[in-house]
Amino acid sequence: MDPWLIAPIAAIISIFVGLYFYRYVEKQSSGTERMREISDAIRTGSKAFIKREYTTLAYFVGVIAVLLLIFLPSPIWAAENPLNNVALALSYVFGSAFSALAGYLGLSIATKANAKVAHGAQEGLNRAFPIGFRGGAVMGFSVVGIGLLGISIVYLLTGNPETVLGFSFGASALALFAKAGGGIYTKTADISADLVGKIELDLPEDDPRNPAVIADNVGDNVGDVAGMGADLFDSYVASIVAVMILGAALSLGGSTIYIQIPLVFAGIGIFASIIGSLSIRIGKKGNPGYALNMGTYITCAIFAILTAISTYYLGYDWRIWGAATIGLVAGVIIGVTTDYFTSEDKAPVLKTAVASKSGPAINIITGFSYGLRSIILPLIGIGIAAAVSYKLLEPLGGLTFGVFGIAMAAVGMLSIVGLTVSNDAYGPIVDNAKGVAEQSGLSEEVIAITDELDAAGNTAKAITKGFAIGAAGLTVISLLAAFQEIASRAGHVAVFDIMDPMVLLGALIGVAIPAVFSAMLMLGVGRNAERMIAEIRRQFNEIPGLREGKPGVKPDYARCVDIATVGAIKELMPASVVIIVATLIIGFVGGINALGGFLAGAILSSLLLALLMANAGALWDNAKKLIETGVHGGKGSEAHKAAVVGDTVGDPFKDTAGPSLNTMITVMSLVASLFAALIVQYNLLSLLGLA
Amino acid sequence: MDPWLIAPIAAIISIFVGLYFYRYVEKQSSGTERMREISDAIRTGSKAFIKREYTTLAYFVGVIAVLLLIFLPSPIWAAENPLNNVALALSYVFGSAFSALAGYLGLSIATKANAKVAHGAQEGLNRAFPIGFRGGAVMGFSVVGIGLLGISIVYLLTGNPETVLGFSFGASALALFAKAGGGIYTKTADISADLVGKIELDLPEDDPRNPAVIADNVGDNVGDVAGMGADLFDSYVASIVAVMILGAALSLGGSTIYIQIPLVFAGIGIFASIIGSLSIRIGKKGNPGYALNMGTYITCAIFAILTAISTYYLGYDWRIWGAATIGLVAGVIIGVTTDYFTSEDKAPVLKTAVASKSGPAINIITGFSYGLRSIILPLIGIGIAAAVSYKLLEPLGGLTFGVFGIAMAAVGMLSIVGLTVSNDAYGPIVDNAKGVAEQSGLSEEVIAITDELDAAGNTAKAITKGFAIGAAGLTVISLLAAFQEIASRAGHVAVFDIMDPMVLLGALIGVAIPAVFSAMLMLGVGRNAERMIAEIRRQFNEIPGLREGKPGVKPDYARCVDIATVGAIKELMPASVVIIVATLIIGFVGGINALGGFLAGAILSSLLLALLMANAGALWDNAKKLIETGVHGGKGSEAHKAAVVGDTVGDPFKDTAGPSLNTMITVMSLVASLFAALIVQYNLLSLLGLA
Repeated sequence: MDPWLIAPIAAIISIFVGLYFYRYVEKQSSGTERMREISDAIRTGSKAFIKREYTTLAYFVGVIAVLLLIFLPSPIWAAENPLNNVALALSYVFGSAFSALAGYLGLSIATKANAKVAHGAQEGLNRAFPIGFRGGAVMGFSVVGIGLLGISIVYLLTGNPETVLGFSFGASALALFAKAGGGIYTKTADISADLVGKIELDLPEDDPRNPAVIADNVGDNVGDVAGMGADLFDSYVASIVAVMILGAALSLGGSTIYIQIPLVFAGIGIFASIIGSLSIRIGKKGNPGYALNMGTYITCAIFAILTAISTYYLGYDWRIWGAATIGLVAGVIIGVTTDYFTSEDKAPVLKTAVASKSGPAINIITGFSYGLRSIILPLIGIGIAAAVSYKLLEPLGGLTFGVFGIAMAAVGMLSIVGLTVSNDAYGPIVDNAKGVAEQSGLSEEVIAITDELDAAGNTAKAITKGFAIGAAGLTVISLLAAFQEIASRAGHVAVFDIMDPMVLLGALIGVAIPAVFSAMLMLGVGRNAERMIAEIRRQFNEIPGLREGKPGVKPDYARCVDIATVGAIKELMPASVVIIVATLIIGFVGGINALGGFLAGAILSSLLLALLMANAGALWDNAKKLIETGVHGGKGSEAHKAAVVGDTVGDPFKDTAGPSLNTMITVMSLVASLFAALIVQYNLLSLLGLA
Repeated sequence: MDPWLIAPIAAIISIFVGLYFYRYVEKQSSGTERMREISDAIRTGSKAFIKREYTTLAYFVGVIAVLLLIFLPSPIWAAENPLNNVALALSYVFGSAFSALAGYLGLSIATKANAKVAHGAQEGLNRAFPIGFRGGAVMGFSVVGIGLLGISIVYLLTGNPETVLGFSFGASALALFAKAGGGIYTKTADISADLVGKIELDLPEDDPRNPAVIADNVGDNVGDVAGMGADLFDSYVASIVAVMILGAALSLGGSTIYIQIPLVFAGIGIFASIIGSLSIRIGKKGNPGYALNMGTYITCAIFAILTAISTYYLGYDWRIWGAATIGLVAGVIIGVTTDYFTSEDKAPVLKTAVASKSGPAINIITGFSYGLRSIILPLIGIGIAAAVSYKLLEPLGGLTFGVFGIAMAAVGMLSIVGLTVSNDAYGPIVDNAKGVAEQSGLSEEVIAITDELDAAGNTAKAITKGFAIGAAGLTVISLLAAFQEIASRAGHVAVFDIMDPMVLLGALIGVAIPAVFSAMLMLGVGRNAERMIAEIRRQFNEIPGLREGKPGVKPDYARCVDIATVGAIKELMPASVVIIVATLIIGFVGGINALGGFLAGAILSSLLLALLMANAGALWDNAKKLIETGVHGGKGSEAHKAAVVGDTVGDPFKDTAGPSLNTMITVMSLVASLFAALIVQYNLLSLLGLA
């Protein structure tokens, strides 16, 4: 048996594990009628959004599929074998569909699990926790299972890593829309609910009188669960594809060993994640945050051991194992160090909370500044992981082995993504559980348990975020190398020397693209929130008894859900299309060097902005939470109001623009790789004799 | 006569023109006793700050001079000619002293001109305007005169562009501290005065009851006048030095023509600026903003014509003239396009003002997003100017001529800096004049005239800012090329290929440095403002009758001036030292390639952050001003309060961190160039055999 077949086998097992967890969660009780009612409202809203989003995207996928069919890998009228065009277009559609499926599955269970966790919390922490975790794990194991299965099928049928690139592009393009749309949706609802509910009317979070409360809960699911699932699906697939393409360049004499190693490692990663996830359990007084983190460490250890064993038996070079392990270790270190900037008991959050006493402006300046400072450690981490894994593999045969090393470090980081997605998806589920508990009037004690579950989600997030950031950085660097490799195979040996005027021009423009993209998304949130705020104010003014909470008086939740949905669908398209079009223009006008510089500039600036936005956002959020525990005047004080402003500014930072940047840069890199060969042949400056 | 001697001649004439304007302004009346009193208080505060700042910096300059003496250009124990070390150290001290002198002269006249402009305004716009403009021109012509004279002297004495590098480093290091210190000072005072005065107590701007009002006016001078003077002094000198060094590489066979061309062009730029400044005049109903902009266009045209004539007579290649002219045109285009994002009648400001109605958070998200969007046009402008000037000169002899072209474009942009600094320094003078008019109770009519003068400053700023941004970008790119050139002469032919693992590592870390630097400055402002806010609140609580404005009751202005001074001096050092040390560590550990990547990363990210901060800051400021004209509820409305929060967040963005970034990256580049030869010999990774 070919060793790489471990990948599809592990993928299928992973899907079954996901289904097993699905059944487990589904069997749990959803509690009282009121709880079911809320849960149903959230699920209905979420599915309505997803349905409309996917319907809109289906047109986009169709258009792109036709374009791919006509133009790639070479224009169909000039193609040696037009079947290659068909394969690529199908592979693309397949990638989109699988990505959508993974998001949909995660969403389905997450919107059921919320009430079940709330119900379980009535029986205690150790009853509720596994429901939350396993709800998240449905998503985790679906994502990796479906992703790796898709790659395996395409590779099995075509044997060509460049066709797998089409699958990856499908996954990423869909993820881009899902992240952007979900991100706009969730923050529209969150900001509007907070600004009118908390600030103007002094209602508590998740108060059922607030017309936007259901939309807010829906947002957590479509943004954090479905969006994040699609996002990690795309990183996971892209990291494997990048290393396969670089591996193909190393596979002289027909050997495919370097193409298959990432598949083998990814398969092992799934087994490690399954064992790790089964190890996660807590006692009656257990600490759920600790349990989640221990699960991650155990998974890492198992992965390192299992890959060492296969390296030994399959006779791989130990340096390759070394690169993957470096990726794993770097992920943990990046997570732990970044954690400093967002923890409630460390200086940045403490000082931002103090600064809130001087008003919202000082709160924002302080939080933003710490966000800027938080950038350097992860970037050093990514840089060292890249440089060390490069230098480690370079002796095997030079430059291409070096970049292969960087790509393997990314694969190492992402192999345990089954577990990290589980941990991440756990967060919005227990957050929603808290919402359900509050809206259905469960006891203070139960709410306290859901609070504890929620806090654990934040603890676990630090490390999983480290993996996500590090992996995204290494993956896009590998994709840049893959792009270079494809261009050189097409006859243009490119050196991305920053002093080359075309590279420089590309880099300067590239730096601006993530900024423009973020701005478009955030302005979308702003516009959408303005509409929704007007609607919430209208309901409070026009529905008699709503403000006072007269029994039986209910706001019109559906109208807010609808505003968020329509707005998000409308706003997600332009930003995503702009970045694809910009990539093509730079390539077809400026050529390969300009495009390489463009990608490099965009990679650097998207890492900067993504880290800034994610960390500043989390920091403002936690400063607000800290004040809510009673310090600096507690809830309702001037300091609290200032902190709420900071938190609101941070919302689109951390949940809309920041997390979309990873996907954005992946899509740009994949577009560049797909079109590289065509660009080598046709680009304006070469045609004019200027390049 | 050697043609380049036009440079020192023009420089001396420039200094005389500056002195002539100084005398002109000094002869004007300062108005009533109350006006003189206020003006004196501002001057005393400013000089106290400058004295303390310069005293502190003298120690720093001394330490660095000793280090240069010992280590550069080569360690004194290994030096062929130890006199070179002496020359470099002296050149450095000389650069610092000249830079300080330029700032001091500008500050002296600016703090006198304010009351004189206010007094002139009583006789009408056309009486006040020339006082303001000529006050600014003292600074403008001192900066270019002293800068070019210094370069000429060092070059005349040593004939060695690398010794001129020492002069440039002296100027830049001092500018860095002056910008950082002045920026922290001005925003500490501004934010504190606004937060307590405007927001808590509803006092108008510049109300004499506010204890921070004098500190605020002092801040305008030490931040905007002295700081900016030092900043443009440093860019101006650095751009000329970069092109001299690249020119030296082209000067085969002992010809020094390419070293001298930038000096000739800079000299012509001074003549063009003098003629342009004399052309600026307005009638009784004239439009001062239009007059300032026309002056700039006239200067550009004269510069282009005069350089064309000398190109013809001196037999320079027309391509060199072309590169300089491209720089000039790019500067204007960048200015005009950037203007869109900060003009009161364009969408970004209008929409940010509308967003203020939904509260401070939406105001900030909207303004920040437009700030992000504003980045792309100037970056495209810089990129195209660089690529075109490179391609234009490349046919003369390849790569080095190409980068020489980029450097000439920077020189082209900066040759008319005498005029642009005049226009820029005009701004804070008339701003202060308005403050003096308000505090001394002049009539509404007079205040309206000072308002009109102030608005003209903002109009002119758009284009001068375009020049500053574009020139900074091109200058640092040229400095990177100069660094590469020096390293290659020292035996390390470097290619800054982004896929080289050391370049990549350097770039990833470099990207984070401007962020960390900005954060340190802004956190300094935050800390300092907290102290000052406490003091202002104390005075209002403890001084009886102050709040009510009882006649004869005065706040303790000096105490606020003192807090701002002590705080700024304390906060300016760490950030500036960190970036110098970081540059040296990267170089001596990672070697030339890592350092090249580091600079490239830092250049890209500092352009991004500088543009974002400058534009978002100006946009928030103007959105607030727009609301103050009466729209969306006008002064005192909720929208206005929200807009004030945005303006306050923007303050340290646009006046502390943003403008310091240009200087920061120049200093980093100069440090790298100075140490390049040493780093080639001694760096850890090479010594360990790893690079």
